[in-house]
Amino acid sequence: MGVEDLYGGVEAGGTKFVCMVGGGPSNIVDRLRIETTSPEDTLTRVAQFFEVYVSSRRIRALGIGSFGPIDLEPSSPNYGCITSTPKPGWQNTNITAALQTSLHLDIAVDTDVNAAGLGEAMWGAGRGFDPFLYLTIGTGIGGGFIQNGRPLHGLSHPEMGHIRIPHDRHVDDFPGNCPFHADCFEGLANGPAIERRLGRRPEALSDEDPFWQTEAGYIGAALATYVLILSPARIILGGGIMQRRFMLPVIRRAVLESLNGYVQQAPLLERIEEYIVSPQLGSESGAFGALALARQAAAGSRSH
Amino acid sequence: MGVEDLYGGVEAGGTKFVCMVGGGPSNIVDRLRIETTSPEDTLTRVAQFFEVYVSSRRIRALGIGSFGPIDLEPSSPNYGCITSTPKPGWQNTNITAALQTSLHLDIAVDTDVNAAGLGEAMWGAGRGFDPFLYLTIGTGIGGGFIQNGRPLHGLSHPEMGHIRIPHDRHVDDFPGNCPFHADCFEGLANGPAIERRLGRRPEALSDEDPFWQTEAGYIGAALATYVLILSPARIILGGGIMQRRFMLPVIRRAVLESLNGYVQQAPLLERIEEYIVSPQLGSESGAFGALALARQAAAGSRSH
Repeated sequence: MGVEDLYGGVEAGGTKFVCMVGGGPSNIVDRLRIETTSPEDTLTRVAQFFEVYVSSRRIRALGIGSFGPIDLEPSSPNYGCITSTPKPGWQNTNITAALQTSLHLDIAVDTDVNAAGLGEAMWGAGRGFDPFLYLTIGTGIGGGFIQNGRPLHGLSHPEMGHIRIPHDRHVDDFPGNCPFHADCFEGLANGPAIERRLGRRPEALSDEDPFWQTEAGYIGAALATYVLILSPARIILGGGIMQRRFMLPVIRRAVLESLNGYVQQAPLLERIEEYIVSPQLGSESGAFGALALARQAAAGSRSH
Repeated sequence: MGVEDLYGGVEAGGTKFVCMVGGGPSNIVDRLRIETTSPEDTLTRVAQFFEVYVSSRRIRALGIGSFGPIDLEPSSPNYGCITSTPKPGWQNTNITAALQTSLHLDIAVDTDVNAAGLGEAMWGAGRGFDPFLYLTIGTGIGGGFIQNGRPLHGLSHPEMGHIRIPHDRHVDDFPGNCPFHADCFEGLANGPAIERRLGRRPEALSDEDPFWQTEAGYIGAALATYVLILSPARIILGGGIMQRRFMLPVIRRAVLESLNGYVQQAPLLERIEEYIVSPQLGSESGAFGALALARQAAAGSRSH
């Protein structure tokens, strides 16, 4: 086996940044986890971590999977910039340009969820399933649709968490907490929505709490919509809420109930436990995905 | 200019079949429109129409855009077969195999709406917009998502008409007429749903009928979901309902209301009259799209 090329990866989150140097999940040379503070302090610490690897030419490119929304329009002067985030101080922070200025190397950037999808595509549960959907359900809800090893980008990146789903106020009178859409999927089912509805953080609920059935119903209804529009060959469910492992079979049943027999495909009807699955990279899909982005950037610059 | 290659195209619909021989919209050599009767009679007449062009080697390949659902799994023994349609007599009709047996030429098959999207991609309102969504709203509701000149296929073809959308029963107490999902988008907004709700066919409603505002709201809510999941660079709205031209601006406003400022993209916010548009091939997107399918089939068989 030859020496594997090394890359830098940054999972840029609203509460923490995870930085890695490595070739892939089986070959991580160095890592750093820092709390997200101000853009200046945070990005300075990120640049310091990578500097030695860049100056010694040990890493070829850097990938960033970032919280957002991010401007990903290649022709935009704000390419790679975090735009209208509610995170204080981070509005209009061009994380990509800042690290480019400090480090002078090829940088590829995408949303955190697209990066996580890419990580699962290259090294995880997405291998052999094309196209597939990676969904994260936690503080935020978002999805990345990966086709032929690339995340779907159109007019912009998808914002799948904000779709409407059926909301029966007789069952759940919480009005939703999305500032844009009130009771969209994210507004009903993300971590903060659970906390505001029940007065306790989701981590504090027991597995027996009846709310989990409602939550699984919302997730199932949303997945049914994704199946009808995207027809993915597999769905991978990550994020904090999905660490409750008992949820997965409840969600699978809810998807089948929502579709009600309309989509007659064997993977759904006969092998749903292989159709809707957990990530194989656990909570590190995003950081490994950032390495995958860097690999693609390096391959792209070689081919130019 | 050289002589253009000729192709055969079949738009296979539940009420009519449209057959064409030509190179594209500006070069149609022959056409036939027949009522859809039994599979045997209908397919015999289709084969007779094309036979002279096949035996004289004037057409290189045949494309079919068909009503469905269709089995489009390439490895399936039923590839190209209409499966669980409610159309009497047509269940499990392998339209593709039947025409292959009669005509002995390369045949490409896809859904009617994917074919129509392909027609708009090659010769219509989809040119220069990648990816884009073609949606038909009529007796049925369906969508084709066209990327790089190809319709999205995953586990199967998408079934976008069957997504859930908000349904306020205080405004519209019609329970929906989808046999699978009751008040999904198609169950609330297709032609038969309008007729069953109001006791009159949609064609009999005046432009001033207040129901059109409700209908535009449903269409706008569904388009908002497609925008959030697919992020298309353009949306093309075809089908019988969209022949009411006053609907287009009402729908555009409804999409913006549903998104409520969340998607900050200039094409939506500043140029929505160029973002949500009518087909350029009118009601013939599907038949021309079948020709486009045939062109791709011929190009594919050349490259093997």
